[in-house]
Amino acid sequence: MMADDRVLLPLAAATRPLYAGVDLGGTNIKAALVDDAGSLLAFHTEPTHVSRGPEDAAARMGRSVHTLASLAGIATADIARVGLGSPGPLDIPNGTIVRAGNLPGWDDFPLRDRVAAHSGREVTFANDANAAGYGEFWVGSAKEASSLVLLTLGTGVGGGIIIGDVNVEGAHSHGSECGHILVDPAPTARMCPCGQPGHLEAYTSATSLKAMARERIAAGATGSLAAAVAGGEELTPILVAREAERGDALATDVLMEVARWLGIGIVTLMHAIDPETVLIGGAMTFGREANPVGRMFLERVKDEVHRRTFPVLAERTSIRYASLGGDAGSIGAAGLARLDHRRKHG
Amino acid sequence: MMADDRVLLPLAAATRPLYAGVDLGGTNIKAALVDDAGSLLAFHTEPTHVSRGPEDAAARMGRSVHTLASLAGIATADIARVGLGSPGPLDIPNGTIVRAGNLPGWDDFPLRDRVAAHSGREVTFANDANAAGYGEFWVGSAKEASSLVLLTLGTGVGGGIIIGDVNVEGAHSHGSECGHILVDPAPTARMCPCGQPGHLEAYTSATSLKAMARERIAAGATGSLAAAVAGGEELTPILVAREAERGDALATDVLMEVARWLGIGIVTLMHAIDPETVLIGGAMTFGREANPVGRMFLERVKDEVHRRTFPVLAERTSIRYASLGGDAGSIGAAGLARLDHRRKHG
Repeated sequence: MMADDRVLLPLAAATRPLYAGVDLGGTNIKAALVDDAGSLLAFHTEPTHVSRGPEDAAARMGRSVHTLASLAGIATADIARVGLGSPGPLDIPNGTIVRAGNLPGWDDFPLRDRVAAHSGREVTFANDANAAGYGEFWVGSAKEASSLVLLTLGTGVGGGIIIGDVNVEGAHSHGSECGHILVDPAPTARMCPCGQPGHLEAYTSATSLKAMARERIAAGATGSLAAAVAGGEELTPILVAREAERGDALATDVLMEVARWLGIGIVTLMHAIDPETVLIGGAMTFGREANPVGRMFLERVKDEVHRRTFPVLAERTSIRYASLGGDAGSIGAAGLARLDHRRKHG
Repeated sequence: MMADDRVLLPLAAATRPLYAGVDLGGTNIKAALVDDAGSLLAFHTEPTHVSRGPEDAAARMGRSVHTLASLAGIATADIARVGLGSPGPLDIPNGTIVRAGNLPGWDDFPLRDRVAAHSGREVTFANDANAAGYGEFWVGSAKEASSLVLLTLGTGVGGGIIIGDVNVEGAHSHGSECGHILVDPAPTARMCPCGQPGHLEAYTSATSLKAMARERIAAGATGSLAAAVAGGEELTPILVAREAERGDALATDVLMEVARWLGIGIVTLMHAIDPETVLIGGAMTFGREANPVGRMFLERVKDEVHRRTFPVLAERTSIRYASLGGDAGSIGAAGLARLDHRRKHG
């Protein structure tokens, strides 16, 4: 058993059927075995080894499903279905990645079907951010909600929209691409890594937070963050949050600027979808509500939303941090497999 | 029978059950009797008489349902359910209007339940733009589509989002408020009638088209549109379209500006929802594809979308005009009643 393998709910306490969820990342493959009530029975992680190519990874994802079964003491055939969350953009009906920036050379590889072949189980294929959204909706921060918008702030910005039991995957596999809603139509808007200006991701990712700080330092901003960077510390969201907690004006300003843009994007998503809950997840959550910077960031987001939305929504829409962290994708993928299984088998 | 009553599909050819849809407008109440396949059996219109108050209108809406039954030669009890589309914002679970600008004094009146009492039938309550969206989705321009975003351009801008059989009415009855997505975050952005700056409606309604033209004339723009207005003609979208068709630069410019902003809003909705089809409806459709101005407007919208969206979506998402015109709301309300009836009775 690897150090990151975990065994949680005992098998005797599990509600059948059981589902496996696999979250494919650029660095790691995370796999979770989950029961029908959303409880975690086993967890397994191994490296993605992107450079070895997609067939090798598909084989390892298939083996992860067998490993989960061994960890829990069941046969793989006892797993009703597997969910696979993958970085997009995807072609969901075909089960392929169309063009994933951090998985070069994986385009058009029959990922879903090869994982099915290696695991011996049918596979539900989904965008990783949608899977994370479904995880939070099923058993995480939004489990009491009837609908959800999840924004995951990391290197990029992912989105998941869940309405009832509908995962908004889109007619062309591009649903819930909330990082790419337009928040600034000006030709001078910040450029998104996707190549278009003015997208939410261009203002609210870790990448853009770092770029904003760097630009202000280059323009002459001083203080403890600027001094730390000048002294050789790597400019990261964690460093910015640390210096904001110490009261540095530059660090605080760029965090509040990111929060302001996030609020603007959330207003548009609230007016289009009107979800019961909006969750903010991903690496860039600054210690969440437990940390003063996490609280300050969330308050600034809510303040921007409240001043721009309808009174009813300002009062009733819950905006808070996601709770499942890095497990949301694998648990949610298992949940999407469960939805498909129930649709097909009643 | 009034002049605007229509009898269409003969009763013998109808597929049961039958549904009635009522579309409440500031000027008229439109009512449609529709069969299970979406074919129109009868249509009836009468004035809303807003000043007589909501109980009077509810009684007239109830009578409209009885009138439809008479027109078709059935008993009202043969109508399985009634759908009621109303201007919003609504409180859908309560069946009330929360604050409708053009229905002063109707707030918190139990509209759904009073129409149910007067018609003797159970009533499904919906936002009017959502009902129109469902009408286009069920039997109109989008009837082959699996999902739809409808934008209706009139005095204001309404929205309807339909995904599969889900009408996105929202957790707080504010779903699909596509006129209120933020397209310009600047403090100097145009003001929406809702009181917030930068909403799509502030750039793409008939009201905003007229305001843009008026501002440019005040700033010294000349040409045939300016001359017509100076000569006493009322500045309307129809006048702007007529002068654009004659080649007037000002008229053409403001139409293209509205189309550009509409394209910007559509990109955001495409990236959030990824619908199979985007429809543009309402009064401001300039004769649709049949008219050179309608074609020019639609081409400019598509051009803005294509330069800002993902290649897959530029290629595959269908963007066109709605087809049901003023009947979409009543037919769609009947369709939403049908959805509820099928959920409750299998």
